[in-house]
Amino acid sequence: MSKPKATSVKAYATSGATAPLAASTIPRREPTDRDVQIEILYCGVCHSDLHFARNEWGFTQYPAVPGHEIVGRVTQVGPKVTKFKPGDLAGVGCLVDADLSCPHCRKGLEQFSPTMVMTYGSMDKHLGLPTYGGYSERIVVDEHFTLRIPANLNLAAVAPLLCAGITTYSPLRHWKVGPGQKVGIVGLGGLGHMGVKFARAFGAHVVVFTTSAGKREDALRLGAHEVVVSRNADEMKAHAGTFNFILDCVSADHDLNAYLELLAPDGNLTLVGAPEKPLPIASFALIFGRRSLSGSLIGGLAETQEMLDFCGQHNITSDIEMIRMDQVNEAYERMLRSDVKYRFVIDMASLKQDGLQSA
Amino acid sequence: MSKPKATSVKAYATSGATAPLAASTIPRREPTDRDVQIEILYCGVCHSDLHFARNEWGFTQYPAVPGHEIVGRVTQVGPKVTKFKPGDLAGVGCLVDADLSCPHCRKGLEQFSPTMVMTYGSMDKHLGLPTYGGYSERIVVDEHFTLRIPANLNLAAVAPLLCAGITTYSPLRHWKVGPGQKVGIVGLGGLGHMGVKFARAFGAHVVVFTTSAGKREDALRLGAHEVVVSRNADEMKAHAGTFNFILDCVSADHDLNAYLELLAPDGNLTLVGAPEKPLPIASFALIFGRRSLSGSLIGGLAETQEMLDFCGQHNITSDIEMIRMDQVNEAYERMLRSDVKYRFVIDMASLKQDGLQSA
Repeated sequence: MSKPKATSVKAYATSGATAPLAASTIPRREPTDRDVQIEILYCGVCHSDLHFARNEWGFTQYPAVPGHEIVGRVTQVGPKVTKFKPGDLAGVGCLVDADLSCPHCRKGLEQFSPTMVMTYGSMDKHLGLPTYGGYSERIVVDEHFTLRIPANLNLAAVAPLLCAGITTYSPLRHWKVGPGQKVGIVGLGGLGHMGVKFARAFGAHVVVFTTSAGKREDALRLGAHEVVVSRNADEMKAHAGTFNFILDCVSADHDLNAYLELLAPDGNLTLVGAPEKPLPIASFALIFGRRSLSGSLIGGLAETQEMLDFCGQHNITSDIEMIRMDQVNEAYERMLRSDVKYRFVIDMASLKQDGLQSA
Repeated sequence: MSKPKATSVKAYATSGATAPLAASTIPRREPTDRDVQIEILYCGVCHSDLHFARNEWGFTQYPAVPGHEIVGRVTQVGPKVTKFKPGDLAGVGCLVDADLSCPHCRKGLEQFSPTMVMTYGSMDKHLGLPTYGGYSERIVVDEHFTLRIPANLNLAAVAPLLCAGITTYSPLRHWKVGPGQKVGIVGLGGLGHMGVKFARAFGAHVVVFTTSAGKREDALRLGAHEVVVSRNADEMKAHAGTFNFILDCVSADHDLNAYLELLAPDGNLTLVGAPEKPLPIASFALIFGRRSLSGSLIGGLAETQEMLDFCGQHNITSDIEMIRMDQVNEAYERMLRSDVKYRFVIDMASLKQDGLQSA
């Protein structure tokens, strides 16, 4: 494999854990045989972007460019690309490469492949350089990791589906959520609001758990049948032993045992938020009722495409607040205060405009 | 339902949390329409017996008679009993009654029924008295909760199958352990040694985790293919991400995250031991690999019968040390020191002999 040429593209980068994001440039490879080059139109702002920008996971190399909820338009394709042509809409999520031959890849679980390359914070095997995310004008991605976008949806509101969407869709599908089931969604944020929409679309009876009674109306509007204020022990107790599935979208510390007690026999609680500290789990809460506690990490490429197609058929997108590129630092602060309904999406046209501050 | 007559039978009971077990008498009902009366020949000694005798779960009423690994011979049956006749072998495990009409019962999961009656520590609905366990000469049980015993097995060594056997068999079946799978058994005691035998019989590659290198030979003899000394971090690391299923049989505090890291994607770790304190679980250990942590509680009656039949076909029993009734207090102390290979079984003939000390 000969090394492809790199070209310089505009991006918004951070130079250190405490530095703000600012205008910069990064190298992108020219498309190789199976690559799709995409002009990025919108990029969602995920909480992972903030963790990564601030090196809260400890592996960030600087300069760093976050962003893994990417939608745009194809501008060029390599000679062996079959799924895309210039002018097509395209999306990119959290993954941009993997071997595609290991047992995990062959099962469609590229996210668990030992050779999995993340959209940012990994290594681009073509250039031998770090991968840079979607806060940029252009990205080049192997077509296997490039998603088709339904034409009928609001494109900006599609962007968060590439991470928040698949992160909630995948466990609801894996645990076979459907009609006749009672499903809980814990936390009504970027992930949770998508979980509500999907669980409702799958035909389940949907209950939202929130710490804030003020979110009741919005939860119902998004599709919940019931809303439980989790600080109210009596409200919680009334649901003991009745849930088939609970999707926990909360990253802050919270008492999981209170939710495990709400599961019916053989019920499952899946974590998609990732609290930093270990969670104390009472063994009896699992033993009585053969309950289970799981985690889930985004989804494979085939399932991500299935999710996007499902969204096209059911007219599902994220509820978003559009921002300009130079508002992203403020958006991070607002995200930390849960002050967003429910996902910031960057209008990447704003990156090309004059007047953006350089790093 | 008219109240049946009660008759007095010999038993070994404790009068308080710190009192030793001693000879006593308890009331047993005369068989009702669907009841089977069993002369108890052997009764296994489960760690739950000790928890219950010493009121470590907080719900013990005294006098208390433990014992839920019961085998014996049918001496009388009610007029509507179809499965048993006098002279048959019969077994009783942890459950003696339930409604049989709720959704859990109808799924064969009587252990999760809200009306489930335990062999000891519950209430006998016929007499309106506490239920008393198998440390006694006779028991009377609804035939739905009475198990058939394969004739080809050593009867004393069958007794522990009624709790330790089904407790390990059920999760191994539920999680579909079989050929081509790598299965871990954590802790080689009363539960663990049965887990090894079943996992091996199901065709899995079996790895025993033990804190004590001295158990290596025995683990291999019982059917393990490999033994890992869990205190050895390098030995543990060599197995990272490779297990399809781990059955955790340890009741003492221990680090579950170290075992979760050994699971392959979609792997499950099921707890059948019940550590008292909450277990700190790292959410990332579950999220990466979509791993799950579950509990399991004995098994339903149909599955318990299936397990006993399987044991008959594959010549599987517990490794036991036979004791006399009056050795049970000493046996509890030895059980606390894990000084038993691998289950004490009481020869109930010794209860009928003279010279036993009365309470």
